Amino acid sequence: MPEADAAQGTDDGLCTEPESALQRVFALLGKRWTGVVIAALMSGPGHFAELKRAVPGISERMLSDRLSELAQAGLVTRHVQEGPPLRVSYRLTEAGLGLRPALVELTRWAEAQLPEDARKCPREFRP
Amino acid sequence: MPEADAAQGTDDGLCTEPESALQRVFALLGKRWTGVVIAALMSGPGHFAELKRAVPGISERMLSDRLSELAQAGLVTRHVQEGPPLRVSYRLTEAGLGLRPALVELTRWAEAQLPEDARKCPREFRP
Repeated sequence: MPEADAAQGTDDGLCTEPESALQRVFALLGKRWTGVVIAALMSGPGHFAELKRAVPGISERMLSDRLSELAQAGLVTRHVQEGPPLRVSYRLTEAGLGLRPALVELTRWAEAQLPEDARKCPREFRP
Repeated sequence: MPEADAAQGTDDGLCTEPESALQRVFALLGKRWTGVVIAALMSGPGHFAELKRAVPGISERMLSDRLSELAQAGLVTRHVQEGPPLRVSYRLTEAGLGLRPALVELTRWAEAQLPEDARKCPREFRP
């Protein structure tokens, strides 16, 4: 790593370096569930309840917040089907679908480098 | 998205589905600075102060915490060079270096899909 100019290292958080592309990615994906919700939508549009089932452990509130953030970032669109019963489905935009190669690489890496934590959930206690 | 068995959707957080590989990735990378710290180390080992300069906006406490987590996950090793002055450097392990293709894909995607937020830091106010 090259020695950087000391003047770059200011810590006031305002207008120092322009954010790098990776900082922008992790401002979005740097929340525990966001990447997993995107991955769940890669196979096709889903209703809220289906998404909740596809992401074990996520709460309704958390899923709702993540979907709103993804919609605001332009990665997900929300489709209302008039009922009754009224149903809302979510689908990835072209921008969201464009994350597929990155998620594939991350999955490949995790399968090789991050072993399942067997202590956390012994095989015999899994459904 | 296929309709999942309703029995999978339990929300007690214990021993439902085994974690997916992507859930394990984002348990690690799902913190704002972690991916950026890893990216900063991709170009070679760095001392703490160099890393802090390479990641604009990160606090010492935050950088220290992220490096400890990465060491615990086996992605970073810590090397102490006896002084004086005593200096500590950090480098990626083989496992850490293996994240390069995924970070390259994420960067490519961000450059295409996540524009710099110019309102946050107008060009004329940048150093």
